[in-house]
Amino acid sequence: MTQNTNTQLPTSKNERVEEVFELFIKHMKEFFDEAKLNHEEYTNFVDWADRLGKSGELPLYADVFLETHVLQAMYTELPGTQPSLLGPYYVDESPYVEADEEGIIDLPKRENEPGDVLYFSGTVKNVDGEVLANADVDYWQNDNSAKYSNFDSDAPDFNLRGRFKTDENGKFTVKTIQAVPYAIPDQGPTGEFLGYMDQHPMRPAHLHIMFKAPGHETLITQVFFEGDEWMETDVAEGVRDELITTLEEKDGYKEASLDFVLRKDQ
Amino acid sequence: MTQNTNTQLPTSKNERVEEVFELFIKHMKEFFDEAKLNHEEYTNFVDWADRLGKSGELPLYADVFLETHVLQAMYTELPGTQPSLLGPYYVDESPYVEADEEGIIDLPKRENEPGDVLYFSGTVKNVDGEVLANADVDYWQNDNSAKYSNFDSDAPDFNLRGRFKTDENGKFTVKTIQAVPYAIPDQGPTGEFLGYMDQHPMRPAHLHIMFKAPGHETLITQVFFEGDEWMETDVAEGVRDELITTLEEKDGYKEASLDFVLRKDQ
Repeated sequence: MTQNTNTQLPTSKNERVEEVFELFIKHMKEFFDEAKLNHEEYTNFVDWADRLGKSGELPLYADVFLETHVLQAMYTELPGTQPSLLGPYYVDESPYVEADEEGIIDLPKRENEPGDVLYFSGTVKNVDGEVLANADVDYWQNDNSAKYSNFDSDAPDFNLRGRFKTDENGKFTVKTIQAVPYAIPDQGPTGEFLGYMDQHPMRPAHLHIMFKAPGHETLITQVFFEGDEWMETDVAEGVRDELITTLEEKDGYKEASLDFVLRKDQ
Repeated sequence: MTQNTNTQLPTSKNERVEEVFELFIKHMKEFFDEAKLNHEEYTNFVDWADRLGKSGELPLYADVFLETHVLQAMYTELPGTQPSLLGPYYVDESPYVEADEEGIIDLPKRENEPGDVLYFSGTVKNVDGEVLANADVDYWQNDNSAKYSNFDSDAPDFNLRGRFKTDENGKFTVKTIQAVPYAIPDQGPTGEFLGYMDQHPMRPAHLHIMFKAPGHETLITQVFFEGDEWMETDVAEGVRDELITTLEEKDGYKEASLDFVLRKDQ
């Protein structure tokens, strides 16, 4: 990028943003160098990127193929529960749900919500082993038809989504239905990319959870279930060993749990 | 990218496309590594890319900031006239224009087309010095208001665009008006990027020409004019020394010329 010396435009004060964009251009040029694209291949590549952008699938593409890497680069060396991708299906401002008298958080669901009833519980601590009472939990997952409310599901908005607090022992238990494996949208430019890469579009079943507690780093992560056939080949590469739990069969429902460890603010 | 072993989807036979996409992901990951984006910066970056894609500006962005590099990487070491970027304003199938009895190709223009009349001529040879008679020339440029027909100009479609042939001496002369410097679209996400980079949106005045001749590589290039104030800081970095010509003032019109050298097919 040639630096301009004549411009009348206001100059940006945000050196960090300039640095990031300069690195983006640098690495895109390195991609073109190594790929040795001829002009026709360049045009085909830009056409695909244009279709991806116009379709609105660019955040999906980035989240599925790149977000995990951003998180791994940042956190793998650090203590505490590993993050996993936020993904494109998070929604702000989901309803706040109070625990009932037995301490159960009954997530918004339809009458006769299809699927296996699941009680999922967890305990939230920090890296010093201190229990985090009254921590904020934001929870979302897909339904038995593999769709997300507020996106592709017919369910009412915020179905199987909720915000709640950990109890005085840092514990929570949600009553939900078991999430199911699902295919990321694969009929558009993202699907075209999957075809080129010989990669199926499946993600293993997973729950999404975000934790916030004062004095601690926000943890955005996911929970997976042992035995899922897509675990090894998750299209989004979101699985971490410590995020895998075991489903226990009970009489008429299933149970699973996982504990979470937050890092303290730097 | 985890290779899939279970998929029922058809596998792509195009190993070259897979190679290119794998390199794209690899270099995007290297960008994230070096930039050390935190999660919020990642989200902001993806938001910008999403706006760029949805606005339809992605090909503009790629052509302005990356296409030149693709061409330089391919051709700088090779003999013959250097290519310059095709850019986003090329249109297929512009009208075929016959030379008049004096050998002048009078490009489609409006009655009283604003601007200085320009006669631009060139000779087309190959790297062995052989004259290329009857070569195909495809020509386009902006008008005096710095706009392109078929895009943002009020002019009729194909104004200041045309296809024609070189004569028996490999020569052509077009009657046109002088192109003017122009600003690439800078009110959308591309403009946002320019702001971050402290880069003005200007390109120096230029003519676009594409040459095709049997047995020779297609040459896509541009012609620039000595003394243009934006030559050194062209936002698209399209200028090459050998692509610069000199405008001569005549009585009521201007004249310029440049010779072009095509490479033979490999």
